Amino acid sequence: MTGAPAKWERALSAGLERLSMVRYEAGARSPADDHVAVEEPLEIRIAGETFAVTMRTPGHDEELVLGLLLAEGIVHSAGEVGAIAHCGKPGERGNVIDVTAAPGTVIDWEPEGALRRATLTTSACGVCGRRSIDDLLARVRPLVDDARFSEPWLRRLTEALGPRQDNFARSGGAHAAALCDPSGQLAIVREDVGRHNALDKVVGRRALDAGLPAAGCALIVSGRASFELVQKAIVAQAPLLVSVSAPSSLAVSAARAARLTLVGFARGQRFNVYAGEERIVA
Amino acid sequence: MTGAPAKWERALSAGLERLSMVRYEAGARSPADDHVAVEEPLEIRIAGETFAVTMRTPGHDEELVLGLLLAEGIVHSAGEVGAIAHCGKPGERGNVIDVTAAPGTVIDWEPEGALRRATLTTSACGVCGRRSIDDLLARVRPLVDDARFSEPWLRRLTEALGPRQDNFARSGGAHAAALCDPSGQLAIVREDVGRHNALDKVVGRRALDAGLPAAGCALIVSGRASFELVQKAIVAQAPLLVSVSAPSSLAVSAARAARLTLVGFARGQRFNVYAGEERIVA
Repeated sequence: MTGAPAKWERALSAGLERLSMVRYEAGARSPADDHVAVEEPLEIRIAGETFAVTMRTPGHDEELVLGLLLAEGIVHSAGEVGAIAHCGKPGERGNVIDVTAAPGTVIDWEPEGALRRATLTTSACGVCGRRSIDDLLARVRPLVDDARFSEPWLRRLTEALGPRQDNFARSGGAHAAALCDPSGQLAIVREDVGRHNALDKVVGRRALDAGLPAAGCALIVSGRASFELVQKAIVAQAPLLVSVSAPSSLAVSAARAARLTLVGFARGQRFNVYAGEERIVA
Repeated sequence: MTGAPAKWERALSAGLERLSMVRYEAGARSPADDHVAVEEPLEIRIAGETFAVTMRTPGHDEELVLGLLLAEGIVHSAGEVGAIAHCGKPGERGNVIDVTAAPGTVIDWEPEGALRRATLTTSACGVCGRRSIDDLLARVRPLVDDARFSEPWLRRLTEALGPRQDNFARSGGAHAAALCDPSGQLAIVREDVGRHNALDKVVGRRALDAGLPAAGCALIVSGRASFELVQKAIVAQAPLLVSVSAPSSLAVSAARAARLTLVGFARGQRFNVYAGEERIVA
């Protein structure tokens, strides 16, 4: 956010911004430059009406929007969407993006209800205590995917992600998500200030390319696995979600209900399997 | 989410749940028990109408709600709130909580607008690209607080937080936030699956006890410093926000605009100062 516009645009293209700060180490003071992950708001409109505003790292905005619309159940395939385009003059990078339906289709949403859903994933379930969570989980349709994942391959998976996290390496402030295809290759890798956004971008990209379901694929996230990340994996119909950190209670419950394989703390030679262990083979 | 209700209630009181999983280490398989951070939805109502639904770790819900209402500018002091009470029968822990205004006051909010604000902090600024972010930052009222913080004290600060992160130690999946008063003591410590929630609980507690502004106080967060966390520190009028991890670009810009001292990567003998260095003294 400092410096001349031209320099700022360059830094931004990588999702990073360079700025000055002061480092203290054991009492010694040294002014220095640092890279931070870029965070900016994105207003998402559907046919001109505001659907949601989310903080994100600019870049791959179309994927983010498609992934979010899929995760929230607003659309069910990329084919329902005609165009996802930034507002404003050509060449200006905008923070407003508009979604229009494909010819012959209608994107069905209620402005008030959709705003709620966009960010408040479970509001539709009418949360009235314990019972509603059980009801919510009971409504999850179990995933049918007989893919198997080898234990040695899983151990190498997070090693493969590290070298692809450019922005994390330089800023320490970006989350990564990735899709690993059935051949074992990291086919899609995205970084963002938000964990949710990074995964939305990956799922959005996949929906645009090979489409969903992401049969036989693994999704990998660099942070913790919360309920919403599990929900996104369920929507993508990927049989495996790998987190390098901890799952939450509701993430585990949802994964078990959906027969999603959920791996946590995947680091070095170790990982924990919280759900769907039948897919792990020696 | 497994086990008998009585056992589940006990585990929940600490924000943790015990469940079974399978650990793999260098190819060896061993079933084990693990603790995960509890994540459940909370529906927040104002005078019976839904304001927001957020995923959180149950416990200190009243603080969370008050902190969120303050951060979003729905109320400006704890005095405007008459009661914050769970719905449902006494003794049942509910996931619905209702806020009523104090006698003689009105909590002024528009259901549609408030839902947006509750989770989409910047929607009110009409984000239309670069200019609107500058406008947003220009509107931040600079903090007037002549507190000073000593460099050696800052180095010890994050060491002090570690032993208070009970749930993180046992689950690896909980974030912590804390308020350090002008005497240098960790006066309030809260843990939650969400970074935002943990800080809302701390600010809500402070608003109930000594009130705001949190003059001369430091706020500490266990995760990254994003725009929304800086915004919460600005609302609390605390002069110092310390993160153990990276700030985002917008967090730095907002802290500079507000003259908030923003410290990142506070680990061991090191920390970086991204804004308001004038408050750091040898």
